[in-house]
Amino acid sequence: MSEPILPRVDGPEDLRGLSDEQLQQLAQEVREHIIDTVGEIGGHFGANLGTCELAVALHSVLDSPRDKILWDVGHQAYPHKILTGRRDQLSTIRKYGGLTPFCAIEESEHDIMGAGHASTSIGYAVGLKEAMRHGQGEDGNVVAVIGDGSMTGGVAFEAMHQAGGLGTPMVVVLNDNGMSISPNVGALSRYFNRVRLNPKLWKAREGGEEFLTKLPAGIGERFAHLGPQLKESIKAFWAPGLLWEELDWAYMGVVDGHDVSMLREALSEAIAAERPVVVHVATVKGKGFAPAEEGGLEGMEKWHAAKPNSIANGAPAPAPVVKPGAAAAPPKPPQYTQVFGEALVEECRRDERVIGITAAMNSGTGLNILQRELPERYFDVGIAEQQALLFASGLALQGCKPVAAIYSTFLQRAFDQIVHDVCLQRLDVVLAMDRAGLVGDDGPTHHGVFDIAYLRPLPHIVLMAPRDEAQLVHMLHTALAYDGPVALRYPRGEAVGVPLPAEPRLIEIGSGEILQEGDGKVALLGYGSGVGKAQEAAALLAEHGIVATVADARFAKPIDTGLVAQLQAEHELLVTVEEGVLAGGFGTGVWETLSDSGIAARIMRVGLPDRYVTHGAPALLHEEVGYTGAAIAERVLAAVGTRTTAAS
Amino acid sequence: MSEPILPRVDGPEDLRGLSDEQLQQLAQEVREHIIDTVGEIGGHFGANLGTCELAVALHSVLDSPRDKILWDVGHQAYPHKILTGRRDQLSTIRKYGGLTPFCAIEESEHDIMGAGHASTSIGYAVGLKEAMRHGQGEDGNVVAVIGDGSMTGGVAFEAMHQAGGLGTPMVVVLNDNGMSISPNVGALSRYFNRVRLNPKLWKAREGGEEFLTKLPAGIGERFAHLGPQLKESIKAFWAPGLLWEELDWAYMGVVDGHDVSMLREALSEAIAAERPVVVHVATVKGKGFAPAEEGGLEGMEKWHAAKPNSIANGAPAPAPVVKPGAAAAPPKPPQYTQVFGEALVEECRRDERVIGITAAMNSGTGLNILQRELPERYFDVGIAEQQALLFASGLALQGCKPVAAIYSTFLQRAFDQIVHDVCLQRLDVVLAMDRAGLVGDDGPTHHGVFDIAYLRPLPHIVLMAPRDEAQLVHMLHTALAYDGPVALRYPRGEAVGVPLPAEPRLIEIGSGEILQEGDGKVALLGYGSGVGKAQEAAALLAEHGIVATVADARFAKPIDTGLVAQLQAEHELLVTVEEGVLAGGFGTGVWETLSDSGIAARIMRVGLPDRYVTHGAPALLHEEVGYTGAAIAERVLAAVGTRTTAAS
Repeated sequence: MSEPILPRVDGPEDLRGLSDEQLQQLAQEVREHIIDTVGEIGGHFGANLGTCELAVALHSVLDSPRDKILWDVGHQAYPHKILTGRRDQLSTIRKYGGLTPFCAIEESEHDIMGAGHASTSIGYAVGLKEAMRHGQGEDGNVVAVIGDGSMTGGVAFEAMHQAGGLGTPMVVVLNDNGMSISPNVGALSRYFNRVRLNPKLWKAREGGEEFLTKLPAGIGERFAHLGPQLKESIKAFWAPGLLWEELDWAYMGVVDGHDVSMLREALSEAIAAERPVVVHVATVKGKGFAPAEEGGLEGMEKWHAAKPNSIANGAPAPAPVVKPGAAAAPPKPPQYTQVFGEALVEECRRDERVIGITAAMNSGTGLNILQRELPERYFDVGIAEQQALLFASGLALQGCKPVAAIYSTFLQRAFDQIVHDVCLQRLDVVLAMDRAGLVGDDGPTHHGVFDIAYLRPLPHIVLMAPRDEAQLVHMLHTALAYDGPVALRYPRGEAVGVPLPAEPRLIEIGSGEILQEGDGKVALLGYGSGVGKAQEAAALLAEHGIVATVADARFAKPIDTGLVAQLQAEHELLVTVEEGVLAGGFGTGVWETLSDSGIAARIMRVGLPDRYVTHGAPALLHEEVGYTGAAIAERVLAAVGTRTTAAS
Repeated sequence: MSEPILPRVDGPEDLRGLSDEQLQQLAQEVREHIIDTVGEIGGHFGANLGTCELAVALHSVLDSPRDKILWDVGHQAYPHKILTGRRDQLSTIRKYGGLTPFCAIEESEHDIMGAGHASTSIGYAVGLKEAMRHGQGEDGNVVAVIGDGSMTGGVAFEAMHQAGGLGTPMVVVLNDNGMSISPNVGALSRYFNRVRLNPKLWKAREGGEEFLTKLPAGIGERFAHLGPQLKESIKAFWAPGLLWEELDWAYMGVVDGHDVSMLREALSEAIAAERPVVVHVATVKGKGFAPAEEGGLEGMEKWHAAKPNSIANGAPAPAPVVKPGAAAAPPKPPQYTQVFGEALVEECRRDERVIGITAAMNSGTGLNILQRELPERYFDVGIAEQQALLFASGLALQGCKPVAAIYSTFLQRAFDQIVHDVCLQRLDVVLAMDRAGLVGDDGPTHHGVFDIAYLRPLPHIVLMAPRDEAQLVHMLHTALAYDGPVALRYPRGEAVGVPLPAEPRLIEIGSGEILQEGDGKVALLGYGSGVGKAQEAAALLAEHGIVATVADARFAKPIDTGLVAQLQAEHELLVTVEEGVLAGGFGTGVWETLSDSGIAARIMRVGLPDRYVTHGAPALLHEEVGYTGAAIAERVLAAVGTRTTAAS
């Protein structure tokens, strides 16, 4: 290889004048930079290796930021970041204070929209281009890059439908690697497979005109063998783009997504068409990294993200050697996700009505365990949270007990289905909200901090959160036994490390629990992970001679009225602790409960602030927002030192 | 016509043994029953006239409720209600205590799912059928009936994609009348037009086999004239169902939706196919009622719903004659919707960056006025609230000032876009929430009672609500001047009747206003329509010698801290009044504000209860939930009579 090019690329303008060969080389250098960097620090991996040539091609034919390049989700945008002045900062990505994990408008003028949740890019693109057509801002080309998995999200369809209707001149690059995070499911996935397996037809069928046709060797045989079935061959001939053409989009594809020259040619043609055009690009997730590229579906899924120090010299790093005779590290607590997945399998074995549902988050929700153990009880609806809950509603109406396991932040997509379908009809649906609270590296788009506040106003729903993994097992059991909607939230990451129960038991709906009786000065009432923080605070207060009462509310709806009234009456100060926004949250619910009983309570509410919290290690984020035992103890000491008797 | 059949039909079992001719007659009798009844009492009209034959055909080939018939939205389900034992109750529909406006599982075993919001039926159907395949409940056939307008909702696509992928044996009847409430927009609408204008091809192309082909006269000429354009003719031949076939659905159509015999034949074939099948049915909205059927788009839109006493003897009732010399009725206040629509046009004229967006609620939001006056500033995205907000986000990023006018209840569909796109990026998007509060006849699926609670937890957003139509004009102006997201809520129906301002003025963000100074006993703090209720209560309290302070909070976020602290400090009792659920609502926000300032307030919160409220005239509903001046005054008197000095 000739002299490296990447070190000279400080922005997209530095791609001007490079030959196709040089651009192809640059893409490979971008890839190696990602393998080296992400292999060391960890982060989204496979999808980014697939978009190196695409990012180079886009930035070489377009003039960003006047032209708008939108990266759906943003977890495949590392090459874009590298090419737009952030090459040397890549090593800070996902770290506190470092580059953001996805795209963010405040990070770079080249990040046209923020993302994190899937399927949004086409919708933005329509708005941007229609604004330009309206004369607003500088005119430019608009290209949205979206994965085949993200196309299953309904809003992507809504946007295709609007742009097709308006004839908005814009390009959608369908980045088709046959994967979302988990292997794709559903009819759209099969459609893509059919198209990908088809001979490569590059066509724009506008007005019947073919402006570019490349029929690879073998196509003759294929058509000959189909001879008797004329109609099928006609259909095969027309099918590749018809899904889009029926929505008034022109279709080009399938383009080799790792050939910069072909990509540039296709993109240039598509942009020049001045109408809605889909460019279907086939890429390989994990391209250029053998364990991902050649490891089949398993390899691709495994290398969706890389762990820190998992790669050295471009290859998987050897596992650290444990010296013979060295003391074994203490066993780590299991992940909440894993405990949930295993408990769900047990519940399915106990009750044949139980069904597990995921929305393209198979291993992220622990439902991969169910899929492995009881595949007939497992459904993946694709990136389609709304459909996850309508499907669950239908199952429930027929007598099943569906458990929809969806991250807290993604459940926001299904809010109307919770209000209008599940709660209104009081359906027997369990919402298992993984990743509730601050999730860490993935940042503000992924923090699950609103669910308590957006669910608490809804009639009929029961809200609960476990303080540890044993409680999670009991609560899932309780939720399934309850006749009506239940939402159960638990954090990302490691559980507490308590023993798991041999048999789950039922918890009385709406009952809290006092864990430690205090001296009457301070009561700390936690919800979910807030119980652990309350216990940490209590330990610190004990050093100051205050024996705090510690209680676990267990339910945010209904709240244990007797317990909170007792805590309020018997203590000078009542403190609530929750991992969610304070406005309308659990602590506020405690006040409402007391207020409804005619008690004017003074409550110190600990939780998350009224702002979006950045990305970084959870401990750093907890520190930043004051969600630590130390911060709570400090606030309590300040309050108890200065306060008079509580009013009632 | 022979002896009437409908009087003998008390349930779907009474359709057994009737001939096609008798069923056709029955459908016409159902139609006449609807024209007579709805023409007198008012209600959804046009869509129901279009589904008379379809409902008869479905109930004659299926065995409800073992077989499941799902009516998307439910506003076209009157014939279904009539055929399933509710014939004589139709005159009570939408009235307090009467039949529900859409479908509701608690009303009839034949109402398989509740509805009201569009695009949900296919998702339920997949769940129901997969539960049956899992052995849960009794096995049966599942048929979802969905309009062409509802197909634009993304979740319908998500469901098609799941069912196609699973091969779920079920039928979707695409009830295509070329309308939602407003004329359809977008690419899908054009697709339906192409298909409908195509010669009627009844085909199931599974394996190339044609099991039913009817080529009406004229098709030969059509193909001949297309002669030179062979490809186009091939495409025209294949196109009708390809959109669905690419998603692994078989397609049958177009079937005449007013021919019971043809419908029965097509439906029977589709059910027998034991796989996902779309039956594309062409119906006429307003069929059999000339002013709707023959009045073009305008006629159909006008007769989407009928006003009470608008029809007599099967024809539009003559307008009531005003006697010469009789005193003219006092002019009614304008509708909030109309005031908003006109104010938006003025804002568009003032600032070229302002753009209006509706999601298929053109006249319901008043955006028909913008469409008429400044069509280039008007966008209808279809039934696609998520896309409405992504489109708005794109417009805002390019410098426009989009105003998305969406009913409070439908905005729930776009909750994630508000959290993840609009608020996180602090985009300049105005959400104009019409129908906030109890909407009346449309009932629990349409009440807009959660928006204060689900929006208040979100960072960066400003929430406001006008107490009258003049304030609405000022607030829209203020929202557009503000640099960031604003949500503005206002009720359905008539405004207060105050004069409209010649020029709008800016209101300071987060500032409330004292309207009447009291004697220090009681402060009534209203939000939106709550201000009027507070004023009514104050008038009643005056009769008991209490001069209440009355204030308008104007903002639910940020809340006027100084004002609420002052009201709290200077009065024995602070009462908040809002037309929304109490949990997490405005009154709770007032407490949070005081709590953050270290004040332990006792607040009496007036608002809506923690349950779904039924349908009926707003005044009756307000009475039921205690949202009246009289109920507030009574509660205040009870509290002030017995209470001691407020704690602080």
